[in-house]
Amino acid sequence: MSLEPFELTAAEATIAINKGKLNPFDLAHSCIERFELCERQVRAYSYFDKELFLGQVKSLGSVKSQLHGLPIAVKDMIDTVDMPTQYNSPIYKDHQPSKDAAIVSILKSLGGIISGKTDTHEFAAGGKLPATTNPHNKVHTAGGSSSGSAAAVAAGTAMLSIGTQTGGSVLRPASFCGIFGMKPTFGSVSREGAKFYSVSLDTIGWFGRSVSDLSLIAENARAVRKPTKLALTKKIKNFAICKLPKSNLASDCANNALEEAAKLLIKSGHKVEELSLPKTFENLYQTQLTIMKGEGRTSFLAEYLENFHLLADDFKNRVEDSNNISFESLRDAYDHAAECRKEFDNIASDFDGIVSIGAPGIAPESLDTTGDAVFQRMWSVLHVPAISLPGFFGEKGLPVGVQIVAPRFMDSNLLEAANQASMAFNCTKVLPILNRH
Amino acid sequence: MSLEPFELTAAEATIAINKGKLNPFDLAHSCIERFELCERQVRAYSYFDKELFLGQVKSLGSVKSQLHGLPIAVKDMIDTVDMPTQYNSPIYKDHQPSKDAAIVSILKSLGGIISGKTDTHEFAAGGKLPATTNPHNKVHTAGGSSSGSAAAVAAGTAMLSIGTQTGGSVLRPASFCGIFGMKPTFGSVSREGAKFYSVSLDTIGWFGRSVSDLSLIAENARAVRKPTKLALTKKIKNFAICKLPKSNLASDCANNALEEAAKLLIKSGHKVEELSLPKTFENLYQTQLTIMKGEGRTSFLAEYLENFHLLADDFKNRVEDSNNISFESLRDAYDHAAECRKEFDNIASDFDGIVSIGAPGIAPESLDTTGDAVFQRMWSVLHVPAISLPGFFGEKGLPVGVQIVAPRFMDSNLLEAANQASMAFNCTKVLPILNRH
Repeated sequence: MSLEPFELTAAEATIAINKGKLNPFDLAHSCIERFELCERQVRAYSYFDKELFLGQVKSLGSVKSQLHGLPIAVKDMIDTVDMPTQYNSPIYKDHQPSKDAAIVSILKSLGGIISGKTDTHEFAAGGKLPATTNPHNKVHTAGGSSSGSAAAVAAGTAMLSIGTQTGGSVLRPASFCGIFGMKPTFGSVSREGAKFYSVSLDTIGWFGRSVSDLSLIAENARAVRKPTKLALTKKIKNFAICKLPKSNLASDCANNALEEAAKLLIKSGHKVEELSLPKTFENLYQTQLTIMKGEGRTSFLAEYLENFHLLADDFKNRVEDSNNISFESLRDAYDHAAECRKEFDNIASDFDGIVSIGAPGIAPESLDTTGDAVFQRMWSVLHVPAISLPGFFGEKGLPVGVQIVAPRFMDSNLLEAANQASMAFNCTKVLPILNRH
Repeated sequence: MSLEPFELTAAEATIAINKGKLNPFDLAHSCIERFELCERQVRAYSYFDKELFLGQVKSLGSVKSQLHGLPIAVKDMIDTVDMPTQYNSPIYKDHQPSKDAAIVSILKSLGGIISGKTDTHEFAAGGKLPATTNPHNKVHTAGGSSSGSAAAVAAGTAMLSIGTQTGGSVLRPASFCGIFGMKPTFGSVSREGAKFYSVSLDTIGWFGRSVSDLSLIAENARAVRKPTKLALTKKIKNFAICKLPKSNLASDCANNALEEAAKLLIKSGHKVEELSLPKTFENLYQTQLTIMKGEGRTSFLAEYLENFHLLADDFKNRVEDSNNISFESLRDAYDHAAECRKEFDNIASDFDGIVSIGAPGIAPESLDTTGDAVFQRMWSVLHVPAISLPGFFGEKGLPVGVQIVAPRFMDSNLLEAANQASMAFNCTKVLPILNRH
């Protein structure tokens, strides 16, 4: 049975392109056909122009990297010089940046094709919801705020996609959409040209349909310093299973996924320990919220002053300090986060990967929410690299992921551990999906 | 003797405008005349358009803030929708952003007038030097990287100006140009739309000719939460005099300035203690360099890939890790900085202001350097608010400043302490200067 080009993973497509077995035009046309089939239901994109898409393929030069000819969807929080960038905000309706964001420029320089801009929660923060539906079931959210980027890869209209994470905006939609998602170590990829939300948390992240896909972006955007060595055979790794604070909010399927993950890792011969984090980590999700909201006070002031009537209450509240986040509590939150970062790196350095619940459960059955980031907040505020792995399912057969993290800057090791875990989970890649529910 | 409008401080001009004694048009024309007199020598601006300047005054609506009608120069690291933004880089020659940076949008919303864009060290980081000369003596640097912003205010072609500081790019030129400069607590003013250099250090800062001038920006850009209370009469404050690491690099005039500052504070009835910082602070300047250069690796990757031949070696070296900054040393630098931040805030909370050397000496006699940031690096990496105060002089009668800092988020208290110090130094404001040396 041969696959359509869009059904390949990005890493498979790269190999096929390099071997001359796949033409970037055929791949582009396959993604566009898939778009025509899916988009009315999935609504992943805020902007998609077939001609612009194909034009980029046409002007491809020599092969500069493994990204050559791969269609990559970009969250509409990230500036693009040839496509409108609207942040899902009426203030920026039809806004056309005059410069690509750093990550977009990097991808284009390396031969990546920007397939379109993807829908997001307004300013990746609140306000207006994304229109995107979950490709597994259209009455369920795809998660957020990188809703469209996750759905585009899950449905197969793009081979890879770029999102942003401040709380849980990459790993949560990856879990809900049953794909692979990665947030690298804070600061390891430039977020210049992405709209600001939280100056010390905002991170560029990405989605793919295999660990190798995630690695493609990590390597080429230089979040890692040398090519990762994703072994195709078993290498024994040390994993820790970590129960997260607030785990009373996890549904059975999320708990089951973590339990099953542990069993499968053991079954594959990996070392698995239970890890309890010190008491000071219990309030880290609150520390993340304090920093995010406290910094949001600053980030939305310009829109507040210039376009008050077009700004959603969420953002007015941030600017007006209605959460009562004092400078003192913000400073304390910074110090708490910094202490835990150092402590976590020490604890986690005994392991190749720390595995935890990926989300409270399957994607909520609603388009009026993008779900709860409670289980991502801690990893975001710790600045650690984090990957969401698929392969587990809950109610209605909908996916639920597990997260795997490592100490700061151990992105390369984490990718290797995630690759081993995906083999143990018997889910090294996922196929594009479109369920007509 | 009555002053020309440009000779007023921004705070004085505000009062005059509000009382109906000064018309924003007259102020603008006065600054433009001053520009015509000074600019050929000072070369503060990379872009100045008289008609655009006056057009903004013409379209001023009702009074929205104390910034109403004040000409403010903006460093060319910061995007402006109606003026080119070139970062002093050939890559961005004639680059025209399609959106104002947050700080520019905030200033405009409040009635501020953008007088023009000011020259900077390339990407505020290295490479091409600014053309700006020191208004006190044209064969001396004005400092950097916010060279033009400091010189514009010192010469009187703008009432206020905006810069950025990653190492010492606001406080050093303030010291060299004999004016007031402020870098607020990290993160307290959005730097969206300013070119990235170092994600965890870049900070928007500003210049004026009095502490009240600095306060105008701090209040209106909401770096402080309520109006500062700048007492016009003496209030007893607790000051510490702090000897900085690497003080062997300070010249006699810098040491004398600090000594004299201490004497003047005591003479004015303030409490003054000597403060020695713990040993762990000794290498903070190195920690700042590690973070700045380590993060610079990420920040210039897009230009490196897209415009290699137009990129200065400084930036190629950053991207290529020629400084050998490993991920491990970067992580250690983050942790060292975080520990010192907490410790410094504890130590400094006993004082209203910590006073230290402002720069190694007067502005170097050269346009091939912008001087050394060694005495600002520590305060930048500590994320604390810092103010440079003028009133002291060295060789050839050129100015040298002293720095005053406070714990994170104590910007309001710091402004009050700085105001008291400026009275003690008998230098509550400075007049614009243009020496025809």
